[in-house]
Amino acid sequence: MKWNSAFIHTLREAPAEAEITSHQLLIRAGLARKLTAGVYSLLPPGLRVLRNIEKIIREEMNNAGAVEVLLPALQPVELWKRGPRYEAARHVMYNAQSASRRTTEVDTVLGPTHEEVITELVAGWLSSYRQLPFTLYQIQTKFRDEIRPRFGLMRGREFIMKDAYSFDTNSEAATRSYQAMYEAYERIFRRMGIDAIPVEADTGVMGGNFSHEFVVPCVVGESEIAITEDGSYAAAIEKAVSVPHPRQNTAASAMGKFPTPGCVTICDLETHHGIPAKDQIKTLVYIADGKNVIFLLRGDHELNEAKAIACGFRELRPAGPEEIFNIMNCPIGSLGALKPLSQNISLVIADNCLRDQNGMVTGANIEGYHVRNVSVSRDLHVDEFRDLRKALVGEIHPETNQPLQITRAIELGHVFKLGTKYSESLGARFLDSQGRSHAAYMGCYGIGVTRCLQAIIELHHDAEGICWPVSVAPWQVSLLLFDESLREVAENIEEQLEAHGITVLLDDRPERPGVKLKDADLVGMPVRLTVGEKSLKAGGVELKLRRSKNSIIVPIDQILNAISEMLSFSNA
Amino acid sequence: MKWNSAFIHTLREAPAEAEITSHQLLIRAGLARKLTAGVYSLLPPGLRVLRNIEKIIREEMNNAGAVEVLLPALQPVELWKRGPRYEAARHVMYNAQSASRRTTEVDTVLGPTHEEVITELVAGWLSSYRQLPFTLYQIQTKFRDEIRPRFGLMRGREFIMKDAYSFDTNSEAATRSYQAMYEAYERIFRRMGIDAIPVEADTGVMGGNFSHEFVVPCVVGESEIAITEDGSYAAAIEKAVSVPHPRQNTAASAMGKFPTPGCVTICDLETHHGIPAKDQIKTLVYIADGKNVIFLLRGDHELNEAKAIACGFRELRPAGPEEIFNIMNCPIGSLGALKPLSQNISLVIADNCLRDQNGMVTGANIEGYHVRNVSVSRDLHVDEFRDLRKALVGEIHPETNQPLQITRAIELGHVFKLGTKYSESLGARFLDSQGRSHAAYMGCYGIGVTRCLQAIIELHHDAEGICWPVSVAPWQVSLLLFDESLREVAENIEEQLEAHGITVLLDDRPERPGVKLKDADLVGMPVRLTVGEKSLKAGGVELKLRRSKNSIIVPIDQILNAISEMLSFSNA
Repeated sequence: MKWNSAFIHTLREAPAEAEITSHQLLIRAGLARKLTAGVYSLLPPGLRVLRNIEKIIREEMNNAGAVEVLLPALQPVELWKRGPRYEAARHVMYNAQSASRRTTEVDTVLGPTHEEVITELVAGWLSSYRQLPFTLYQIQTKFRDEIRPRFGLMRGREFIMKDAYSFDTNSEAATRSYQAMYEAYERIFRRMGIDAIPVEADTGVMGGNFSHEFVVPCVVGESEIAITEDGSYAAAIEKAVSVPHPRQNTAASAMGKFPTPGCVTICDLETHHGIPAKDQIKTLVYIADGKNVIFLLRGDHELNEAKAIACGFRELRPAGPEEIFNIMNCPIGSLGALKPLSQNISLVIADNCLRDQNGMVTGANIEGYHVRNVSVSRDLHVDEFRDLRKALVGEIHPETNQPLQITRAIELGHVFKLGTKYSESLGARFLDSQGRSHAAYMGCYGIGVTRCLQAIIELHHDAEGICWPVSVAPWQVSLLLFDESLREVAENIEEQLEAHGITVLLDDRPERPGVKLKDADLVGMPVRLTVGEKSLKAGGVELKLRRSKNSIIVPIDQILNAISEMLSFSNA
Repeated sequence: MKWNSAFIHTLREAPAEAEITSHQLLIRAGLARKLTAGVYSLLPPGLRVLRNIEKIIREEMNNAGAVEVLLPALQPVELWKRGPRYEAARHVMYNAQSASRRTTEVDTVLGPTHEEVITELVAGWLSSYRQLPFTLYQIQTKFRDEIRPRFGLMRGREFIMKDAYSFDTNSEAATRSYQAMYEAYERIFRRMGIDAIPVEADTGVMGGNFSHEFVVPCVVGESEIAITEDGSYAAAIEKAVSVPHPRQNTAASAMGKFPTPGCVTICDLETHHGIPAKDQIKTLVYIADGKNVIFLLRGDHELNEAKAIACGFRELRPAGPEEIFNIMNCPIGSLGALKPLSQNISLVIADNCLRDQNGMVTGANIEGYHVRNVSVSRDLHVDEFRDLRKALVGEIHPETNQPLQITRAIELGHVFKLGTKYSESLGARFLDSQGRSHAAYMGCYGIGVTRCLQAIIELHHDAEGICWPVSVAPWQVSLLLFDESLREVAENIEEQLEAHGITVLLDDRPERPGVKLKDADLVGMPVRLTVGEKSLKAGGVELKLRRSKNSIIVPIDQILNAISEMLSFSNA
């Protein structure tokens, strides 16, 4: 294919808003162009990469026995309301509202995902255990009302996902389906050139039994993961298990109020009163399912909201400063869960680390005062103790006995064992061999397809541009014509390679060699061939791998062999 | 592929709402399933057909030199407002509204089409005539707020379209691009097994110079076309040209009012007063771009709204009875454009057929009265004469001298020569070789991809089910296993055919032969093979074409040859 028919428009400068390299290269190499916040057009070279990614996903999903369908983006709200998570998910959804028949009633949303639709679809024909198991998947456009879309295709409002859904007769069978998808994901990411790490993940809004995220470490990732140095343990931060740094407990002694004017944070008390964070109690007021709930943690710990939700709530959020004042009659810096507790509080949950601790400091519920020598069991109102805290850097993972590192990561895939949450509420049931009715056991499995496209750039680039893995490259070979008089030579090479299934981008523009070399490096095809007087005098065509600094001269009649070999080597 | 892994769920009965055969078969053969009004999930066999259709379109678009991109569904309203047709198009658009950040301001819509987006995209890099011509296309999901979605995939709210956009330096070049797409469309429809008729069409809301629709006659079609018996002339009814039935004009004589109580239609006056429709004047009050406009036609003619708009309006609609009374101070049955005209009327446009006519009858603008012996030039206020009327069945087409038939049709494709309407307003400009700036000449070209899927069913079925053309069939061969003990024979045939690139659906379910035969006919693969004791005793496998009544026995070692031959024959 000729450069001009490929419709590539490279840019010297990236737009100012492109904060990360992959976003900059995405735009500079002419792969995509922003239409509006979080919404991108894919241009021909970008679309070619996307199709290569889709092909890999499709092949591996089909090999794993999954069957492809195509579900709609427009989804009735009524269906979401019958499902188990409308309230938790609605804040990320767009309403599709008729422009002409405007009503206040919303009846249609744009699907951010398809658990409800597929479960209802399957409910329509599932009747017998003989029909199980099966896994359906699609590659389809999703919409998500991201408040702050960023980083190009990494966090968009419109994006392409592969989503799959498995249906099984029981939990063990569902685990097998989960495992098959897990293994397919390992192959998919490997084939794309992505070293994805599977980490234990929280099931969050999706609900369900267990899940893994497939992530790659990246400073701008949205997720945090905890990982041991040797990688033998890795988990999403919400899920990570670790041994807290120990605290030396003391004997109980008499509690005493003391003035702390201007001290409103853990850090203030540490600095101005010399009270170590681990001797303080953090009092967090939340609104959980409409009720006022207090979470208590050691001052050096942070609340893991996923664990907080797992205490049995559907949704929660921190109370605002005004709300807190109304609830506790005290400003945010002096709160404590001291007895007697305000009638406004429905529940107090304390982190396990606080159990039986004495000699702690907490707010006195009076502005500018704290109390010391607090005995948790004697002085605080605690309804239950739970694991509430986030793992911290350097804490030891109990099973591997190794310290945890915490790093940001991009989530590229996610596999969930869902259980029967959706099938129960939407009636996807079957009769077993004894004629008893059961809800199907489900799993769901997502890959951010457009996100992968950009993640590959993030993982494979250098200062000059993108270095595509062969498997997803828009073209495998970049063929530069340096001298118009040699057009026939170049076109013959193009034709010969293409006849052997090798994709070639022939840059035959009337541009200087320097421009073509720069563009070839920027767009990043794995193999570069240059046809010029100089190379011909040297005996052939110059061949250079994008990732290598060195080039060789290859006689024209050996090009096909040389390239075939290099491509198969790069693919391995 | 085995029946069960293909996920086909056939139904004996179609849903009651499926009014046309193709819609019934779409659902009964398990190709698609309705999610909500006008919104369908595509199931595996339906998706396979869709992919085959897409493949044909892609090949022909690429062969015609078009380059594929992928544009977003979410589009900023601001862009539409800068473009030339927001007011005319907004009633078919969905607003995408944030569920959580609800504002009254709409800032994003779901694209029903992409002229604005592509023109702005191109405006971003188009600078020189050297970059022209080019044609970009995509196959992408569109959203349209259909008030009354009907007929399955024929008129949906979410559907897949192929849309293409050409950019040229001038009108002649644009006509060449148009012609290339026109010819690609002819090949596309032919390869799909659709005998599409290109008809001259109105450019409507799209604006532009000229256009053709590719239609197939169908009683439930949304469009009307006028066509001569030999097909040498065909046009959308909005565009059709014909010679009106002549009227014998009379000499002018004195106008006279006469009572017509209860007569409020053309037909009433014909019946009760013996006044032929062609001697009456039809007075239609419209609201056009906010002004009150009267259109006058002969009583036996109908207003062609497309021609009315072409008088220079952006949008128009008939005034309602109350509006008419307020404007004319007279109810709807007695209107006339008699002098002196009500001050409320801004413009009166009369059809060419009324020019210089005498002896006509029109309403007296007094309830229950009409006037006779009206001379159009003497008695009526007419600002201009225009061609306003729809062609009627039996009228003669002036160039071919043949009578017109009028029939309903489904529009499957549409090609427009747009001119510079979009490029002017959105700044897609280039410099010519002399450095002068011009707006690019555009064309746009659509195919309703999901609509084609169902149109093929509408065109290719019999009482038993679908008869797919080979080119789009979900599988080419339906292989029925009648006896479990012969599984190995069947699987060997399946394997051999698939190894030669022939797609096979093996029905190995534990069902009776009758069930499998019925399902094979319903789903409609072009070739059917049955493997059973009976056929083996007869010397091989029974082979039958879906469209034929007869079958033959083919020895197993000759199946591949026989089928390859039949498929290439069917493809021809």
